Amino acid sequence: MTLVGAVDIGGTKIAAGLVAADGTVVRQRSVPTPAAEGPQAVLDAAADLVAELARPGEPVLAVGVGSAGVIDPRTGRVLSATDALPGWAGTDLRGGLGARLGVPVAVDNDVHAHALGEAWRGAAAGVREVLLVAVGTGIGGSQVVDGRVHHGAHSAAGHVGHMPLPEAEGRRCPCGGVGHAEAVAAGPALLAEYRRRRGAAGTRDLADVAARAERGEPTARQVLEDGATALGRLIGGLVNLLDPELVLVTGGVANCGPVWWSSLRVGYHAEALPPLRGVPLEPGLLGHLAPLLGAARLALDLLPELTAR
Amino acid sequence: MTLVGAVDIGGTKIAAGLVAADGTVVRQRSVPTPAAEGPQAVLDAAADLVAELARPGEPVLAVGVGSAGVIDPRTGRVLSATDALPGWAGTDLRGGLGARLGVPVAVDNDVHAHALGEAWRGAAAGVREVLLVAVGTGIGGSQVVDGRVHHGAHSAAGHVGHMPLPEAEGRRCPCGGVGHAEAVAAGPALLAEYRRRRGAAGTRDLADVAARAERGEPTARQVLEDGATALGRLIGGLVNLLDPELVLVTGGVANCGPVWWSSLRVGYHAEALPPLRGVPLEPGLLGHLAPLLGAARLALDLLPELTAR
Repeated sequence: MTLVGAVDIGGTKIAAGLVAADGTVVRQRSVPTPAAEGPQAVLDAAADLVAELARPGEPVLAVGVGSAGVIDPRTGRVLSATDALPGWAGTDLRGGLGARLGVPVAVDNDVHAHALGEAWRGAAAGVREVLLVAVGTGIGGSQVVDGRVHHGAHSAAGHVGHMPLPEAEGRRCPCGGVGHAEAVAAGPALLAEYRRRRGAAGTRDLADVAARAERGEPTARQVLEDGATALGRLIGGLVNLLDPELVLVTGGVANCGPVWWSSLRVGYHAEALPPLRGVPLEPGLLGHLAPLLGAARLALDLLPELTAR
Repeated sequence: MTLVGAVDIGGTKIAAGLVAADGTVVRQRSVPTPAAEGPQAVLDAAADLVAELARPGEPVLAVGVGSAGVIDPRTGRVLSATDALPGWAGTDLRGGLGARLGVPVAVDNDVHAHALGEAWRGAAAGVREVLLVAVGTGIGGSQVVDGRVHHGAHSAAGHVGHMPLPEAEGRRCPCGGVGHAEAVAAGPALLAEYRRRRGAAGTRDLADVAARAERGEPTARQVLEDGATALGRLIGGLVNLLDPELVLVTGGVANCGPVWWSSLRVGYHAEALPPLRGVPLEPGLLGHLAPLLGAARLALDLLPELTAR
């Protein structure tokens, strides 16, 4: 059986799996990311995880990686990253993991890997053009056309969260800019807005706000409705620009329930041009498996080259 | 010499040229569009124009067309169009011109043809990923990567003007929506805003507003600055999303002079993420020749198929 390794590197957790050529996840595990110990410790942990999953007689032919940060898939290096992974920028992910594991390695950004996974075996299987919007601590995006991610000229494509949005006017964005979508529609913005309205002791996290909204608490409902409507408007504008066949919305905030989703659709339909209003806006299907499957897809794409040697 | 025909069909004018394989425009002419006489008259006029340009011993091997409206390049049909070309939606452009001229025909939207022209022989020659934003009566866009236009799943990609923009909040857009970029940054919006501030008799057209701005008239300057800053913010957001190597800004409004351009850059730099602020924002080089050259490129791309028969 052809098996490849798949790795998903985030600021808090590293997940890895062994994946068959048909997308079956044969085995998987995760460990906390030793982020504070620096990039080499993170690479060690990722390589160890893959090595532990392997069994005699089941060679791992290649490894794919989805990682937090801006990743150059051509060089396999991290171009930039947030403080969640100190020192991550500049890390030679491909070379470092390749040297540790002795197999070819392909790397990409984790949101792109997520989109590739959904496009291969998830909600976008069989779809030629999909736009994925991942809403969590930040808002990322990925456009996959014919199974290929659009990376852009500097591997920086997909910064959906840093587009101007009317509802975000005047609000400071984590990127240093002002008025970006992330400042009004990402998870931290929703939680901060709820606390601003109800006091800091009012809730412990966004899941609690979502639960309160489902129970009908007016402030919680309003906060989710406002954030989701704004994001829906942005996505409607993106559909007018990119004209995908399908839009997937994933990430922790997409778990906020029907109040959030129905407002998202209201905002979306208000913006999308008439011929594009029918473009479906759906959740992902694969959850945390999506980036692993996307990473596996990257690894499998290396194998024809391997065979050709 | 290999010659192809190139046609640019707009609501007021049809332009045509004969173009050599190296992009030299050998001969060109234009006629008013007989829009009121219906689509068949428009096709007749376009075909006549190409036929009149041809000379004995100079066979035209294929024809490329850039046309107003949403065009399906796969079927060669017009999917939708504005009132500027009554009845244009549904027209079989490829079949109709092919039957009249007896050569293979390739068609695309005129903004996409413009971008292809600049990518082939203009300001984006040698650039792998270019985003073109055309600002005139409306605001259109086109993303060309490796010489290929991104059309989207319904051939509707590039509706830059119908993305939400803070400065457009509450303003009615020609598409029927509210708050879109076109409602604040397109030519008619700038002219309407000047007249709103100075009275309807204050100016005859946008070129006059631009001339007044250059002479230092405060209202004219302010109107251009506001519209250009808003558009620049939108383009900054587009760069964060798409990460092109170069942005070209073309169309009538891009002729409004240095006041407009410097405000465009102010808005752009305020939005673009730090690693992308260096992405150049430039005017086109080819002007009205750009859509003809793009159409010629489409026609030339048909020729390998022709040779292969």
